[in-house]
Amino acid sequence: MMCKVMVNGLPGKMGQIVAKTALERGLVLVPFSLTGEDVSAETTQVGSQTIDLLKPSNREAAIAKILADHPGVIAIDYTHPSAVNSNAEFYVRHRIPFVMGTTGGDRKALMDLVSTASLHCVIAPNMAKQIVAFQAMMEFLGTNFPGVFSGYKLSVVESHQKTKADTSGTAKAVVATFREMGLPFDDSQIEMVREEKQQLERMSVPAEALDGHAFHTYAVDSADGSVHFEFQHNVCGRRVYAEGTIDAAVYLAKTIFKGAEPRCHSMIDILRTGAMN
Amino acid sequence: MMCKVMVNGLPGKMGQIVAKTALERGLVLVPFSLTGEDVSAETTQVGSQTIDLLKPSNREAAIAKILADHPGVIAIDYTHPSAVNSNAEFYVRHRIPFVMGTTGGDRKALMDLVSTASLHCVIAPNMAKQIVAFQAMMEFLGTNFPGVFSGYKLSVVESHQKTKADTSGTAKAVVATFREMGLPFDDSQIEMVREEKQQLERMSVPAEALDGHAFHTYAVDSADGSVHFEFQHNVCGRRVYAEGTIDAAVYLAKTIFKGAEPRCHSMIDILRTGAMN
Repeated sequence: MMCKVMVNGLPGKMGQIVAKTALERGLVLVPFSLTGEDVSAETTQVGSQTIDLLKPSNREAAIAKILADHPGVIAIDYTHPSAVNSNAEFYVRHRIPFVMGTTGGDRKALMDLVSTASLHCVIAPNMAKQIVAFQAMMEFLGTNFPGVFSGYKLSVVESHQKTKADTSGTAKAVVATFREMGLPFDDSQIEMVREEKQQLERMSVPAEALDGHAFHTYAVDSADGSVHFEFQHNVCGRRVYAEGTIDAAVYLAKTIFKGAEPRCHSMIDILRTGAMN
Repeated sequence: MMCKVMVNGLPGKMGQIVAKTALERGLVLVPFSLTGEDVSAETTQVGSQTIDLLKPSNREAAIAKILADHPGVIAIDYTHPSAVNSNAEFYVRHRIPFVMGTTGGDRKALMDLVSTASLHCVIAPNMAKQIVAFQAMMEFLGTNFPGVFSGYKLSVVESHQKTKADTSGTAKAVVATFREMGLPFDDSQIEMVREEKQQLERMSVPAEALDGHAFHTYAVDSADGSVHFEFQHNVCGRRVYAEGTIDAAVYLAKTIFKGAEPRCHSMIDILRTGAMN
């Protein structure tokens, strides 16, 4: 089964790596990309392929021919928070199944739109399949075994590129599940590492990942110190998100091919299929 | 609600720490303990309490009065593999709810016995509640998200006291669930650390735990090295097993108090109640 994708948000960095990953994974990259009105270039390159950049002002005129030439194409969206809702409306209007990797925008309006759209799509705030699985696993513990770590103590440290000012959202979500396990812990106790010297020496972040990484360590210790649990998820760069995005596109293509009832899917749905990576 | 326990297997080490933990947790320690015919002592001490040791040859004569004096007592068994089945038969014959922490014996015969005994008991190969929860969490991942780590690679290292000749059973069980997650890995690839110098320097085992510890590290890495997950569970000494055992006894007492239908329980049942630590 051939999977054709149109990666929107080129020439942005995330769009670039997703498009390259699509090619590496053997998908067909349709040579068009939705981009912002403010992008002056008319084309961009992905490897040896030239991609035409479509602006809001000219995309309506172009889309019918693109869809006729590339039937079954799936849109992948890594654009801008301000474009999330108008792009989703565009996909729905033209019946283009899509993977929404862009965060932000009006999420409630987005979910309302797709709930009645009868269109296959994947919407996920985090496309890193393995991280989503890790979070689901932690939620399983908190939900099924409340208080399993009563009397233990938690410590959390996360490291991200120095430009990230706020605390990791993933760390906060995981800490919420640790609270269910009996570990009192305030989000403010999450230690943020943003100094490059500490990132290199203490967190073992590779030098080339200083400007793009997400390292998390959760340590759980018994009061007497005789028991220690540790959980780490350390990501360098954007590759894992791109891979998960391509998994999502392939999953959509297979789901459509099987004739399943159209709906909005999550990364958990993709994980449950024992996806393809 | 008062919880009375008779800790069998004194003066053995595990019995000792369980009995002490029972006292620390505010349980009543009934001053009798089933022990082996080969134990020459007639009494032993737990803190300031003197405990009468009962042999197979004199326990039948003594038990009626013990049960009359200590109604509702729960037996905790840390005896010997060779005693597992005869002790379980003793508990069933005298209607003594029990926690079986002793491993080995004929497990099928044991389970057959309790399946028809209509008696509350807890039977668990591993009484460390938090480790059992960790294993359940891993099974959740393998069962629900098969192939989540396809294309990744696994490495496993475990350290135990140098007298332990075989590979960690827990490590083998966890590796089996990693295989379901798409990580091909043979049990023979589990690295065993048994040299004290390595244990101290590489595994950070505390010196006082060299003769009794169970350290496990599982590392999962993406093929390109950009994603790293790590899971550790490191136990020094026997405390965590004793705590879980007392949790099991308290759980049994509460369950009996509530008038629940008698049956055999697992540590998972105890974890699900959001137990007491």
